Amino acid sequence: MGKSMDELVNHVKHRGFVFQGSEIYGGLANTWDYGPLGVELKKNLKDAWWKKFVQQSPYNVGLDASILMNPKTWEASGHLGNFNDPMMDCKECKARHRADKLIENYFGEKGEEVVVDGLPFEEMEKMIEDNDIVCTECGAKNFTEIRQFNLMFKTFQGVTEDSSDEIFLRPETAQGIFVNFKNVQRSMRKKLPFGIAQIGKSFRNEITPGNFIFRTREFEQMEMEFFCKPGTEKEWHQYWLDFCHNWLLSLGLNEKNVRRRDHEEDELSHYSNATTDLEYKFPFGWGELWGVASRTDYDLTQHAEHSGEDFQYIDQENNNERYIPYVIEPALGLDRLVLSFLADAFEEEELEDGSTRAVMHFHPAVAPYKAAVFPLSKKLSKEAQEVYSELASDFMIDYDESGSIGKRYRRHDEIGTPFCITFDFDSVEDKQVTVRDRDTMEQTRMPISELKQFLSEKISY
Amino acid sequence: MGKSMDELVNHVKHRGFVFQGSEIYGGLANTWDYGPLGVELKKNLKDAWWKKFVQQSPYNVGLDASILMNPKTWEASGHLGNFNDPMMDCKECKARHRADKLIENYFGEKGEEVVVDGLPFEEMEKMIEDNDIVCTECGAKNFTEIRQFNLMFKTFQGVTEDSSDEIFLRPETAQGIFVNFKNVQRSMRKKLPFGIAQIGKSFRNEITPGNFIFRTREFEQMEMEFFCKPGTEKEWHQYWLDFCHNWLLSLGLNEKNVRRRDHEEDELSHYSNATTDLEYKFPFGWGELWGVASRTDYDLTQHAEHSGEDFQYIDQENNNERYIPYVIEPALGLDRLVLSFLADAFEEEELEDGSTRAVMHFHPAVAPYKAAVFPLSKKLSKEAQEVYSELASDFMIDYDESGSIGKRYRRHDEIGTPFCITFDFDSVEDKQVTVRDRDTMEQTRMPISELKQFLSEKISY
Repeated sequence: MGKSMDELVNHVKHRGFVFQGSEIYGGLANTWDYGPLGVELKKNLKDAWWKKFVQQSPYNVGLDASILMNPKTWEASGHLGNFNDPMMDCKECKARHRADKLIENYFGEKGEEVVVDGLPFEEMEKMIEDNDIVCTECGAKNFTEIRQFNLMFKTFQGVTEDSSDEIFLRPETAQGIFVNFKNVQRSMRKKLPFGIAQIGKSFRNEITPGNFIFRTREFEQMEMEFFCKPGTEKEWHQYWLDFCHNWLLSLGLNEKNVRRRDHEEDELSHYSNATTDLEYKFPFGWGELWGVASRTDYDLTQHAEHSGEDFQYIDQENNNERYIPYVIEPALGLDRLVLSFLADAFEEEELEDGSTRAVMHFHPAVAPYKAAVFPLSKKLSKEAQEVYSELASDFMIDYDESGSIGKRYRRHDEIGTPFCITFDFDSVEDKQVTVRDRDTMEQTRMPISELKQFLSEKISY
Repeated sequence: MGKSMDELVNHVKHRGFVFQGSEIYGGLANTWDYGPLGVELKKNLKDAWWKKFVQQSPYNVGLDASILMNPKTWEASGHLGNFNDPMMDCKECKARHRADKLIENYFGEKGEEVVVDGLPFEEMEKMIEDNDIVCTECGAKNFTEIRQFNLMFKTFQGVTEDSSDEIFLRPETAQGIFVNFKNVQRSMRKKLPFGIAQIGKSFRNEITPGNFIFRTREFEQMEMEFFCKPGTEKEWHQYWLDFCHNWLLSLGLNEKNVRRRDHEEDELSHYSNATTDLEYKFPFGWGELWGVASRTDYDLTQHAEHSGEDFQYIDQENNNERYIPYVIEPALGLDRLVLSFLADAFEEEELEDGSTRAVMHFHPAVAPYKAAVFPLSKKLSKEAQEVYSELASDFMIDYDESGSIGKRYRRHDEIGTPFCITFDFDSVEDKQVTVRDRDTMEQTRMPISELKQFLSEKISY
């Protein structure tokens, strides 16, 4: 690591991982498009998550609820009433600020830590006043009052703009799971404990998004709600925390760059009896990657009250005891997960001969291409393409015949391809190829017939 | 087939494929949530598409552009100006109608075919007047004037509702590809011909959505834009049409239920020189599944004009000739693809003994579960679970130990699991299990060690 955010962003933009959204039109603030390599990286991470959290889990099943939901959902969840940021404007330069962030940054720069989240607006205004906190844009101290700003994107379904047709883009995937708790439990005949996992887009109209794909207004989540018997939630919270942590390390994240942070008593949501974040050390500092929260029966109780639906579970194995399940929620942001893998993998490596190479040290399971096939000479194109086609039937493979082999190695180092396979003139006869390892740069001669088995083993985790 | 839409919808709702969106709150018109089995079916179709259109294609790469785009995109594409439906209201009962559909249905019921799409509003109003077409809800003939209704969902990015912050949910994924043409071509060093493929959500505020998941306001698309040299587009149009058609059949769709329909001259978009739809015979009739359009250089030219960007391709293999590439676009709706596979697979089969069974005849590649593992008795749970775990490391597998084996067979017939694997008392000794085929209902004895290979072969396509 040790690379700056700018270097990383520059590298991944030019190498086809992430482009600025709507770039030809000057962009659209804070939107990003995943290029051909970024989409593969993202897909590999999604597939790896689904494999461990759904396919291989004896507990969990999947779901894909829609982004547009009945607005009563957001009344019940509290998002309509409470999902607000404290916003204020500078009257001089019109810059918009999140009051809590402004105060936190002010004290942070002095090396002091303050918790502002959740304070009444008057207290925030008093802190700004008392400490002479000024606008970071123009230096003036002339702010409007602080006011609530709801973070949900609003739109209109149907053909009028009456408020009766007002709907919202979901700010989290979790509620799509809660409202389907009974549908899933019934149709799948599930017994507690069990979980429902979902991957999907969410939207938050953040006042101050930023840090590349770390905090964006449109983002993708991988959330799971795990339903268990009250009293067992501490145990399951620990179980899923360990499970998530191990999943990150099994895919190759450097353990030094991942840490756990328990929420303090005063930081916990009122309904949560334990929350631990898995944080990653991004180039800009430690940031939340995965929040693992014990949410008690808060969500299901809220939906039961607002919908009139009975969310009690009848525990047939315990004398038909009835209770509303408790919930453990491991909530992961896919875009910041991608960012953590990009940052973790990227290195400007000094070589023995004094030169440097840019290399992405992805675990083969998440690398966009598993291998690249090169003919040593264009005279060998046909034969090399046959090797490519055979491998491409099972794996994501690149074929490259332009430039020297050395240049082709460098190009694939830069995008993190773990293995480069060169088909040379001997290969025609001996049916062997040279396999070059991205990280060690060592070359091994290997029978073509063993390549699939070799790659299969390398991408397992 | 031969099942009605109601029977199909009822079956897939109760079996965990598709639930009504926000059901506990009375739903939200026209939204649907994919349950645990639906999400697997959908994922299998997405993965199968990606495998053939991206991974195994020597031409294509992937992309994942954001849903929120700079509004200039929609000026250039014509969606801001022209993406409208002719809307009118019944003054008596307030029902809202699409004028063109009302007229077409009126004549359709009389067995006459009329093309209304694209007619001036006055002519539509005259047709309604002259033919005494009435409101289908209340029977009155008292309509408002026809007016334009733009189908894009509008929202506001940032923190004010000024029109300067007005943005739209994309009505198609295609434009995210066009605006990234240069980014992809440059970063991936692609030469023509090449394609860019994308899977993602789009939104259209349809006045009259319907037919379950066939036409929804929020929907998922799998689109590809294939860039080629002008003059070669007819050939490539045919190539991709065949490719798409074969893909559907290779995954088991009944060839009798798929047909091609060329657009007539007067039906073609003004920029298209050929469009062919692959249609599927849904329970409600033939409907568009996949539109394969030859779009000339229309889109890139529009974006070049609106952005000032140069979209010319320099053809180094042809004396550096410069031209704007032509485009072939195979555009597939994922939700209606899911519906076609559900409809195609579903059967109420009469058995020899006079009884019936509900069965989903999915190709193993798309079936939610590839197999289910049953212990013959709960005394064999431990051993059967070991077989389950071993298979689940590679495949989506269910484990079921409740009820008689016959009941378990029926349950898995109903959700389309192609193979049921029973672990019995002999299995402990001979390490063999009984594999029962969903479609033939035949049972075969097979070594446990051969199961993975057996399933791998069955799911290949």
